[in-house]
Amino acid sequence: MKKIVTLGEIMLRLSTPGFERFVQAESFDVVYGGGEANVAVSLANYGYNTYFVSKLPNNEIGQAAINHLRRFGVNTKYIARGGERVGIYYLESGASMRPSKVIYDRDHSSISEADVNDFDFDEIFKDADWFHFTGITPALSEKAIVLTEEALKSAKRHNVTVSVDLNYRKKLWTPERANEVMSNLMQYVDVCIGNEEDAEKVLGFKPGKTDVTSGDLELAGYKNIFEQMKEKFGFKYVISSLRESHSASDNGWSACAYDGSEFYHSRKYEIRIVDRVGGGDSFAAGVIHGLLDGRNFKDALEFGVAASALKHTILGDFNMVTVEEVETLLKGDASGRVQR
Amino acid sequence: MKKIVTLGEIMLRLSTPGFERFVQAESFDVVYGGGEANVAVSLANYGYNTYFVSKLPNNEIGQAAINHLRRFGVNTKYIARGGERVGIYYLESGASMRPSKVIYDRDHSSISEADVNDFDFDEIFKDADWFHFTGITPALSEKAIVLTEEALKSAKRHNVTVSVDLNYRKKLWTPERANEVMSNLMQYVDVCIGNEEDAEKVLGFKPGKTDVTSGDLELAGYKNIFEQMKEKFGFKYVISSLRESHSASDNGWSACAYDGSEFYHSRKYEIRIVDRVGGGDSFAAGVIHGLLDGRNFKDALEFGVAASALKHTILGDFNMVTVEEVETLLKGDASGRVQR
Amino acid sequence: MKKIVTLGEIMLRLSTPGFERFVQAESFDVVYGGGEANVAVSLANYGYNTYFVSKLPNNEIGQAAINHLRRFGVNTKYIARGGERVGIYYLESGASMRPSKVIYDRDHSSISEADVNDFDFDEIFKDADWFHFTGITPALSEKAIVLTEEALKSAKRHNVTVSVDLNYRKKLWTPERANEVMSNLMQYVDVCIGNEEDAEKVLGFKPGKTDVTSGDLELAGYKNIFEQMKEKFGFKYVISSLRESHSASDNGWSACAYDGSEFYHSRKYEIRIVDRVGGGDSFAAGVIHGLLDGRNFKDALEFGVAASALKHTILGDFNMVTVEEVETLLKGDASGRVQR
Amino acid sequence: MKKIVTLGEIMLRLSTPGFERFVQAESFDVVYGGGEANVAVSLANYGYNTYFVSKLPNNEIGQAAINHLRRFGVNTKYIARGGERVGIYYLESGASMRPSKVIYDRDHSSISEADVNDFDFDEIFKDADWFHFTGITPALSEKAIVLTEEALKSAKRHNVTVSVDLNYRKKLWTPERANEVMSNLMQYVDVCIGNEEDAEKVLGFKPGKTDVTSGDLELAGYKNIFEQMKEKFGFKYVISSLRESHSASDNGWSACAYDGSEFYHSRKYEIRIVDRVGGGDSFAAGVIHGLLDGRNFKDALEFGVAASALKHTILGDFNMVTVEEVETLLKGDASGRVQR
Amino acid sequence: MKKIVTLGEIMLRLSTPGFERFVQAESFDVVYGGGEANVAVSLANYGYNTYFVSKLPNNEIGQAAINHLRRFGVNTKYIARGGERVGIYYLESGASMRPSKVIYDRDHSSISEADVNDFDFDEIFKDADWFHFTGITPALSEKAIVLTEEALKSAKRHNVTVSVDLNYRKKLWTPERANEVMSNLMQYVDVCIGNEEDAEKVLGFKPGKTDVTSGDLELAGYKNIFEQMKEKFGFKYVISSLRESHSASDNGWSACAYDGSEFYHSRKYEIRIVDRVGGGDSFAAGVIHGLLDGRNFKDALEFGVAASALKHTILGDFNMVTVEEVETLLKGDASGRVQR
Amino acid sequence: MKKIVTLGEIMLRLSTPGFERFVQAESFDVVYGGGEANVAVSLANYGYNTYFVSKLPNNEIGQAAINHLRRFGVNTKYIARGGERVGIYYLESGASMRPSKVIYDRDHSSISEADVNDFDFDEIFKDADWFHFTGITPALSEKAIVLTEEALKSAKRHNVTVSVDLNYRKKLWTPERANEVMSNLMQYVDVCIGNEEDAEKVLGFKPGKTDVTSGDLELAGYKNIFEQMKEKFGFKYVISSLRESHSASDNGWSACAYDGSEFYHSRKYEIRIVDRVGGGDSFAAGVIHGLLDGRNFKDALEFGVAASALKHTILGDFNMVTVEEVETLLKGDASGRVQR
Repeated sequence: MKKIVTLGEIMLRLSTPGFERFVQAESFDVVYGGGEANVAVSLANYGYNTYFVSKLPNNEIGQAAINHLRRFGVNTKYIARGGERVGIYYLESGASMRPSKVIYDRDHSSISEADVNDFDFDEIFKDADWFHFTGITPALSEKAIVLTEEALKSAKRHNVTVSVDLNYRKKLWTPERANEVMSNLMQYVDVCIGNEEDAEKVLGFKPGKTDVTSGDLELAGYKNIFEQMKEKFGFKYVISSLRESHSASDNGWSACAYDGSEFYHSRKYEIRIVDRVGGGDSFAAGVIHGLLDGRNFKDALEFGVAASALKHTILGDFNMVTVEEVETLLKGDASGRVQR
Repeated sequence: MKKIVTLGEIMLRLSTPGFERFVQAESFDVVYGGGEANVAVSLANYGYNTYFVSKLPNNEIGQAAINHLRRFGVNTKYIARGGERVGIYYLESGASMRPSKVIYDRDHSSISEADVNDFDFDEIFKDADWFHFTGITPALSEKAIVLTEEALKSAKRHNVTVSVDLNYRKKLWTPERANEVMSNLMQYVDVCIGNEEDAEKVLGFKPGKTDVTSGDLELAGYKNIFEQMKEKFGFKYVISSLRESHSASDNGWSACAYDGSEFYHSRKYEIRIVDRVGGGDSFAAGVIHGLLDGRNFKDALEFGVAASALKHTILGDFNMVTVEEVETLLKGDASGRVQR
Repeated sequence: MKKIVTLGEIMLRLSTPGFERFVQAESFDVVYGGGEANVAVSLANYGYNTYFVSKLPNNEIGQAAINHLRRFGVNTKYIARGGERVGIYYLESGASMRPSKVIYDRDHSSISEADVNDFDFDEIFKDADWFHFTGITPALSEKAIVLTEEALKSAKRHNVTVSVDLNYRKKLWTPERANEVMSNLMQYVDVCIGNEEDAEKVLGFKPGKTDVTSGDLELAGYKNIFEQMKEKFGFKYVISSLRESHSASDNGWSACAYDGSEFYHSRKYEIRIVDRVGGGDSFAAGVIHGLLDGRNFKDALEFGVAASALKHTILGDFNMVTVEEVETLLKGDASGRVQR
Repeated sequence: MKKIVTLGEIMLRLSTPGFERFVQAESFDVVYGGGEANVAVSLANYGYNTYFVSKLPNNEIGQAAINHLRRFGVNTKYIARGGERVGIYYLESGASMRPSKVIYDRDHSSISEADVNDFDFDEIFKDADWFHFTGITPALSEKAIVLTEEALKSAKRHNVTVSVDLNYRKKLWTPERANEVMSNLMQYVDVCIGNEEDAEKVLGFKPGKTDVTSGDLELAGYKNIFEQMKEKFGFKYVISSLRESHSASDNGWSACAYDGSEFYHSRKYEIRIVDRVGGGDSFAAGVIHGLLDGRNFKDALEFGVAASALKHTILGDFNMVTVEEVETLLKGDASGRVQR
Repeated sequence: MKKIVTLGEIMLRLSTPGFERFVQAESFDVVYGGGEANVAVSLANYGYNTYFVSKLPNNEIGQAAINHLRRFGVNTKYIARGGERVGIYYLESGASMRPSKVIYDRDHSSISEADVNDFDFDEIFKDADWFHFTGITPALSEKAIVLTEEALKSAKRHNVTVSVDLNYRKKLWTPERANEVMSNLMQYVDVCIGNEEDAEKVLGFKPGKTDVTSGDLELAGYKNIFEQMKEKFGFKYVISSLRESHSASDNGWSACAYDGSEFYHSRKYEIRIVDRVGGGDSFAAGVIHGLLDGRNFKDALEFGVAASALKHTILGDFNMVTVEEVETLLKGDASGRVQR
Repeated sequence: MKKIVTLGEIMLRLSTPGFERFVQAESFDVVYGGGEANVAVSLANYGYNTYFVSKLPNNEIGQAAINHLRRFGVNTKYIARGGERVGIYYLESGASMRPSKVIYDRDHSSISEADVNDFDFDEIFKDADWFHFTGITPALSEKAIVLTEEALKSAKRHNVTVSVDLNYRKKLWTPERANEVMSNLMQYVDVCIGNEEDAEKVLGFKPGKTDVTSGDLELAGYKNIFEQMKEKFGFKYVISSLRESHSASDNGWSACAYDGSEFYHSRKYEIRIVDRVGGGDSFAAGVIHGLLDGRNFKDALEFGVAASALKHTILGDFNMVTVEEVETLLKGDASGRVQR
């Protein structure tokens, strides 16, 4: 069973029930989630030996976050305990033309103030096959930048494949600082996932002169950026999901990828949304599975898109689907007929 | 007030709240349902003197199933008590491209092990006007086959009109066994309801050379099968609902029927689904009401389709609508304007 | 901060959870609402000093209604206490082709039996900028007619701008009686809001010969009626929302207005409905804000339409949106992208 | 199976969840109940053929009340439909020194305005064995007094045993009016249930000179009153429950009875209360069962006390216990050991 | 109507439903509370014109806290908006020998980082009659110490009576720092509330040689400390609640007070606990009402004890009782009989 | 970290919310539990490397059971997948004199039909320190007897300490069969836990002539039986919990043990019960921890009693307490004071 490591923050997610607004809520639904934790859960569902690395306070809220991960099969033994608090995000689910809202209250979380010495990366990456992180982790704090780079160095020492989801978060840092930090970290990365906005905000890429004969304008822009990214950082694959936000209730969902020679656009799904948070993370996890599973990059991309399309129908940050369920959708059965 | 009898299994339905997956659920919503019970409730709502015949264990779960039926006006006095357990089905509601899932845990239920002596069919069918059963009941066990045939014989002795919903369940028996058993039981049936799959799996019919000029191919196939069924078993009407599964959230819904001379395709409804379980049962009940009410078979079919379209907007197995509500929809008002 | 006064009834709203039918419900969700209270809450959200004038019994249910208003910033100091009961309405939310249902149990409510002496209108309208009422208030009882006219007279004495939402309620009075009462009250009104049905039932207007070249037939009918209304009562603006009920789940939503010289039809929104009750009230409140805010009548109309489109995505009678949220939608962002 | 009839009002009970106060509640738990309906349900649970006679409006709330009764086995075919509304009572459950609160909103209910012609009492009391009513029914309105007396006359014509629970409700009438009305109705009564307060307020009895050597003072008072009541009205049995309200959470519970020769005080239970509403009704039903079952009046009293002690541990107005469960407690097992 | 001001922090309280442990919770119940806010709500319930002064972030969670206060009648116009976050406390309710647990996550809250310039104390204390604060407010931060002293100076300039609840919080500061800060602030205080632990930790008092003949030892210790406190700081009254923690489910509850000449011990209540958080705050509020209402200090103390005994039966931080409800208990009716 | 193995069945527990009766329930709370699984969770909470061995069907309900165990830290890698179904038990929580009820529906569960070949016991018991089973496991089926003995033999081969909780279940087997099977299995047991009823029903022991001078009669009976059991089977320790069922709401709780020379009776706790299911299992786990932790048998017993007293305050089968929480209670703090 392949070993996968992800590093980042897991937050307490407090969401209003159903479509309630924040000012109406008399209770919050409680799950725990965060980009890298979400990826870890997806991959545990696919049968990998998955480790989530983070730091959580030594109280019951920290324990509840750990339990939430264990429940879905993630190995939590590398999670350090201590520090001040569990980061929080409040979520209000939108509908129709009313957007969902996220309020972050994540400053001073244990992982943002964690120390390199909290973790034994050589132990963590021993026999590991894949390491995934996102642009959120180094954005948490200066200490987190150091932590992330140490993890990456160790991963590379152990010949671990590395993927990143660029994930720009404007509340956490400026494009300038993001560019400075992330450009340095890209030297360790094999597979880069990120959309146009991420590419620009985090790495400074803008579409140049594009080959408009190759398809529609937006895809042409992606292709152009992917080529630049591949050239500058030598990524093996550059990948992005493509979201068409018709409304808070309905989205179009597909993805594109570039392997240095070919640019590929996946099948597109029209989704009636149940919960779109974690959609991008489930996409990254799906692609990672596709590649680890030995599929070609196009099939890996299709797996990622189908997996994450399903995520949009599932409550919470975590994508609770099996490989078999994704395969069924990949085979074209989106009819939703009852499975008895 | 006309007397209607149905015979079959009522199960405990344990469904996850909202769109939760099984592995998320911390509670299950509880209703009770099953094909023939669902038909009985619909017909009680339409004002008939309706009896559901079954066997339930002599414990509080059995009692709760009875109470659930009584609440909606079904007469439960012919339900035998005893046996081992109430059958269960677990339900996870799908959304968009994620299908709903049903897990059955119905083996060894009281009705599947019930004896002919548990029931006094001559008492039950005395003064009865209609008897309805489905292909699920004889599929439960060898004893259930005997039970079903005894009921049918008694019904015929009392000149009761008989309808069947073929309802093939692959977890319960093979097509071969289904064909063997059901072909024999068809001699007692006046009105046969079942779709293409049922017709093939249960009775072995496949569309032959069809008169393609008569309409689209699928409908032509139905017409052809219906003609064969009519010819072989002498049904008065052969009827099927027609579901177009766009996704777990949206379905097209219509029906077709054949009276030996004319093949009729009903109006089609596009449905935003709340709960599609029991949709077919509500259709059968609607058709039965239409026929008992003295409508011609086309109007009866339209009543069944409208009634079951409404069922898809109602939680639980039971269709809680009145004749008036169906009539309003039949008159063309699908606008959903608030009724004050 | 401008002072706004509304007068009317606030009811206890008992609604079934989710899509449950009345006969299924084991609990009711509890909010409080009513046309004029809903307008007051919207305007309090927009930052006005808003007073709701009514009468509520001197028990805890009355107190809970007051608390509900206070929570959302409405000043309740002019609410008289006493009388028999809080009016109730039961609500069952529809879906797809199943309509929502409202059952009223509002007779004998405290406000319907309130006396002019329960209120000091000179105190209430001192320094007020706007007074809003609806056709529901005088429809409650003979005493309520007197009350409404006294309020209107006082408002006019204090040079307060007056708006009305005609809101015909067939359970409360006949068109004849409505016409008689409301025609008299129109002398005090500056801004008249009401759709075609209201105009006919409440004020007796029917579309005459319309200028069919001006646009589609329905809009032409509205324009024609608006001209008649303006002419007869001298309204400054005549305004109506326009609902296209595709189903209980999906509506088209726009509005039109006439300022004596120009007839304007707003942008139209296609809405996935969460809760449509109070949609019209949120429209009225949006228009009032637009006008009080100094916008021209077209921009005020667009504000009202956008505000009320958002209301349809919010549970309860009250529209819990800020000016900023409406402005975002007005600027064209209906994509529903998560706001982080 | 013996036939039992009760006549009265069934109300919608809206109770705050758990220990919430009215001003906190965002939802109400929904059950339906009322003195005579509660007695009917208890007796249906004990296996009697029980009919509840009342009038309910022809809307879904009325239907839900009927369904609630049917669910628990009460025959509802004599319930007339029509009239204005279902009466309501709001309930807030107390704890420790905070009392429970009931707010009534029952005026103008369908049964309070029902007509004698709404019911065919000769049909209703045909073959009946027992008729039970309470002092609440005639207190509802002048029409209800006529209705009650007509029912009583019919019952007597059919040789039906009659029991009454005096149940004084100060919100409904004065002691003077109660005395006037009820004293007249007592001529039809065989078994009279009511505590000291009821006896005084409804029938005007006060303890006279009591035989203090016979036991403690309170019991002596009861004995004295019972003797007076027996003498004046010729009751076969005079009976009362005895509640010691230590707090809203803990009560002592016993009963006493007089058969014209012997005064008997039952075993006393100390109860941890879950829901005490309907406690008195479950006592009356238990006593009725005891007498119908052929027990002597002391054993019947013990059955009533044990049955109603159990009621205090059950949510809602209805006592959902079987004869077997009461017998277990009667045999002395109050240990609460898990029954597997 | 008298004007009362309190100053402090209002936190988001996230509590597990019922008796769930933190690691079980799938949702949190949401209320908002904090010592001084709780006092403000109690006093608003008693009919005072009550202002809560604090700072809350300019997001929906801050708004929800404000709405929560408004709902219960507190005037929120002096609440500044801005800063980083709403402080949080997590609550797990204990039972029997399992204690309740509170986890604080309150660092960096808006009020802890508020500036004196955020508030116009001369405006706030204009025409005010009473100012209440607790030892928690200055413990929040160095800036909060300055803020508290500025408020106190302004209160004194406006001749406002000042009360303090010492409330030592060991997570916020050391006894040494508390002593240093609070001893200085005591110069502004008229009424001092605090138990033995508070007196020692916050002000450094320990019982000296006590007059053991005066009563039991614990009370004698209180009397001795109160005398010392009175002497050193010149308080008008020194007051403490007295809790006997039999278990998490049952407490004894009384209080004692000293007015410089007489030491008084109140009636004691035995309480079955629903929610004990905020019990001390409701006691302080009750005493303040008693004194403002012109009662002597013994009667004021009794009012405070009765009011806070009731609080223990109410969910949430806030004591939702009226003066009338407290009076009923004061008159001795703790029987919990249903109030109809 | 010591390795502990338990073997048995984990069932789906469907319990009515709060105090609802089965016939009222519209939803069931869902947890998973069973004697040996409960012991495993307790020991995982105490920090052991705990393995639960069982078999579960290869569907989502089986997966949910596994997830439930993983959440609380139990290693599930030795759980075989396959077979027919997850066993179920329905639970209705009692109150006061109304007992809790359990309805079993556990026949044909996967573990009851599991084969020895489903497990590699040599792998399972490698490096294990303790093995715990109960009398329920062999009672499941003839195959389960073989399975249990194979596990015991393997445990002994690996020098693993073995404990048993006799746990007689009358629905599963007769005393005769239990005696026959269990007497044979006792040869492998070091620590025997079981009360008087278990000792008699499972092993055939009855108290002989007891040394009544040693204490009260019941304890004397226990001592006598323990001596017989020790003598016959050579147990190292014989242990029993002692429950005094005052009612379904309140129990006394203690335990006694015998080590071959000394008989010891623990401290007794008076418990206000939240959920008593799993109380005995939490006692066994506490004792096992005490012994594994190197405490003498008296201290181990006290740990078990305190741990299981706490269990009674926790919802669900699992005892979610840490060693620290038990220690706090052991040190005598049962005051339930809030821990901040």
